[in-house]
Amino acid sequence: MAGRKVLIVYAHQEPRSFNGSLKRIAVEELSKQGCSVTVSDLYAMQFEPRATRNDVVGCLHNSEEFNYGLETWEAYKRGDLSNDVIEEQKKVEEADLLIFQFPLYWFSMPAIMKGWMDRVLVQGFAHEFPNCYDSGLLKNKLAMFSFTTGGSEEMYAKGSINGDIRYLLWPMQHGIMHFCGVKVLAPHICFAPEYVSEEKRKEMLIAWAQRLKTLWKEEPINCSPEWYFQ
Amino acid sequence: MAGRKVLIVYAHQEPRSFNGSLKRIAVEELSKQGCSVTVSDLYAMQFEPRATRNDVVGCLHNSEEFNYGLETWEAYKRGDLSNDVIEEQKKVEEADLLIFQFPLYWFSMPAIMKGWMDRVLVQGFAHEFPNCYDSGLLKNKLAMFSFTTGGSEEMYAKGSINGDIRYLLWPMQHGIMHFCGVKVLAPHICFAPEYVSEEKRKEMLIAWAQRLKTLWKEEPINCSPEWYFQ
Repeated sequence: MAGRKVLIVYAHQEPRSFNGSLKRIAVEELSKQGCSVTVSDLYAMQFEPRATRNDVVGCLHNSEEFNYGLETWEAYKRGDLSNDVIEEQKKVEEADLLIFQFPLYWFSMPAIMKGWMDRVLVQGFAHEFPNCYDSGLLKNKLAMFSFTTGGSEEMYAKGSINGDIRYLLWPMQHGIMHFCGVKVLAPHICFAPEYVSEEKRKEMLIAWAQRLKTLWKEEPINCSPEWYFQ
Repeated sequence: MAGRKVLIVYAHQEPRSFNGSLKRIAVEELSKQGCSVTVSDLYAMQFEPRATRNDVVGCLHNSEEFNYGLETWEAYKRGDLSNDVIEEQKKVEEADLLIFQFPLYWFSMPAIMKGWMDRVLVQGFAHEFPNCYDSGLLKNKLAMFSFTTGGSEEMYAKGSINGDIRYLLWPMQHGIMHFCGVKVLAPHICFAPEYVSEEKRKEMLIAWAQRLKTLWKEEPINCSPEWYFQ
């Protein structure tokens, strides 16, 4: 869909990794469609994951007792967030689709990407009560979590030891994206690329390119407890 | 229980915060019982959350394609992890009980604490297939997640918009602690301390001190899908 804007938030240390290939394929395929694609390569940017007083330029609203949520909300309104956060917010603002590309670390995203969520999606910018969930401030945007796992698909089946893979998607898809009003496309999961054959890995990359071809026709999931837990 | 060792992994920027009070109370109460208490004050330590090549001292096992999980596993075996990681592993090794004290950020822990999980609990130290879950390498230890929320208890009830609070505990309690063999005590949750009266806040602090008095008599939860999703 020519003209659409995509932000890929990417967290892998190694360009030659399987995640690096997935990212590269997304840039190529979406660019080919005429989309404008921006990549936030978090490790290459040495993105700061820690939520600290440094995120607020100038004086604090209450310097007696530092409250990160309150201070960054106030700083957002004054235009006083740190530059790296403002830059990411601009990219989000412009994007129609956010793709999060990462290896699953401990049933979640790597800390560097969690820090992106913690610091970029501040109150006032991404949500502001009662503007959350379906009326979140980032409504009209789409998001997709695209990740690799260490464990096999069988290990993430319902009833298996890791539990249904959907269980661990709840905090990310519902608690973060849906909370901000973003509609969530079905996740793209590559199971255990480290432990499969070179041929199987190639098939996974082809499947990803194929999915991207018709991505804009997809309907978002129904991001409610039923999708995750039934 | 005199002689028991406790590690409190603490993630709040502000000592005067409610989380700061909860941490202080835990140190006081457990010390009074004769426990030896260590605190990892992550923001004060400026703990590094990013999983990078810097975590491996000296040469890489495979410098052609950096694989964090593989390299840190190898480095652990050689004793070549970075010093800050080794220090935290020593604290974990000595501890009978780990308490994680933090404000809930986006249905999860703050990035700085997620980075502690990502970097400290490396393969070889905390797990090593097939030694995971009930045979994880940190078995015989206990853990508890103690955290504050922005939303009220009603907002985290089953059927409400945030969903049952237990849904979001799955990745942290099961995916991390249980995976490493650690037995999980029921979480300690202080709902919305920012939005309740000073009196109610005091009650919450007293309740925490009370719980700590009989903590060592508690049975761990049954950390299986039923606890979370039924």
